[in-house]
Amino acid sequence: MREIKVVENILKANDEIARDNREKFKRDGTLVLNLVSSPGAGKTALLERTLAELKREYKCAVIEGDIETTLDAERIQSTGVPVVQLNTKGACHLEAGMVKNALLELGGGPFDLIFIENVGNLVCPAGFDLGEHHKVTICSFPEGADKPLKYPSMFVRSSVVLLNKSDLAPHLFSSIRQELEENTAKIVPHSNIFTVSAVTGDGLDKWYSWIRNEISRVKGNA
Amino acid sequence: MREIKVVENILKANDEIARDNREKFKRDGTLVLNLVSSPGAGKTALLERTLAELKREYKCAVIEGDIETTLDAERIQSTGVPVVQLNTKGACHLEAGMVKNALLELGGGPFDLIFIENVGNLVCPAGFDLGEHHKVTICSFPEGADKPLKYPSMFVRSSVVLLNKSDLAPHLFSSIRQELEENTAKIVPHSNIFTVSAVTGDGLDKWYSWIRNEISRVKGNA
Repeated sequence: MREIKVVENILKANDEIARDNREKFKRDGTLVLNLVSSPGAGKTALLERTLAELKREYKCAVIEGDIETTLDAERIQSTGVPVVQLNTKGACHLEAGMVKNALLELGGGPFDLIFIENVGNLVCPAGFDLGEHHKVTICSFPEGADKPLKYPSMFVRSSVVLLNKSDLAPHLFSSIRQELEENTAKIVPHSNIFTVSAVTGDGLDKWYSWIRNEISRVKGNA
Repeated sequence: MREIKVVENILKANDEIARDNREKFKRDGTLVLNLVSSPGAGKTALLERTLAELKREYKCAVIEGDIETTLDAERIQSTGVPVVQLNTKGACHLEAGMVKNALLELGGGPFDLIFIENVGNLVCPAGFDLGEHHKVTICSFPEGADKPLKYPSMFVRSSVVLLNKSDLAPHLFSSIRQELEENTAKIVPHSNIFTVSAVTGDGLDKWYSWIRNEISRVKGNA
């Protein structure tokens, strides 16, 4: 029983800090999106393109989560948007306390929109509330059509699912597009499922519209 | 300090069962390979092709690890090789005790070669010894060239790295092949790095040769 108690304590401590983060985001009128995916599904490329679209409209910032390296923060920095890199040093997910520290480091707010790019891991980040408004799962076509069925917990908890790398679909098996869209719809309890390509821009308008609506909603409620 | 103590106990218990598994594999003269990767890097497709090549030469079996579904076991079953599906029900990695149970379930041994296909996760399975002889990391070209740098612990602990989906490389950015091979070589302390495609068969001969050599070595030592 002792192990279970400790896990509960860790999650309880995380949830308390997540609540503090959430209150800060509410005070500041900031929409916060937590991007989660397998390694290499295209989170950073999607962020680069999304920031290029939205950075003149909204005051944006990014918190980058990685086990090692500052490679992703360097890519974001070149967009001109403020960014902080968190290195988890082995941990498989971000926790609310790491985000709290990153917010202090970031300074310069309040922001209209903060993206948190989680560690590439389709399993563990599902269990940790960071205080964000929404989780956004990114799943890419080369990963195959069965990922929503095999890793349902992340998909179920996400307000948006982006099916990325649609540009590679013609080079995969012929039914991949239909199968991935159908399997995602089976698991996800809403219709915010957008097939996109961060390379060609295909389908991104729906994603941008969704973000704009959510920012309006957050500002209305702030 | 309490949390750290509990984690140590969990790992110690895992290591004791892993030792039992390892002794059984030694008694049986079985080579055991633990396949690890991101979700969708192509573990199951590589296994299907590898079993087609080796199943007439060696007595093979497969232990499939997934959070949910029996999709992968169904694919392996169609090769005619005995397979057991483990469902971790949320856990992000396999542990030695799960493998021990799967071996009892499998029956029919001793086998020359057992593949364990881990949960798709490039982080957590690195920390858990299952009693296997070798970890084999599979990393696919569409994941991008930076994965060995960003998720080094799995690569460092693997005796072989398969860079899979080389058939998709021409549809990605032009330097991807060179960059992924160079980044892998920076992290991995040996030269068992094979660029392969489970679709076209490109490069798989080196992987098959490596397995044949290892089986001979295990039989020699048994």
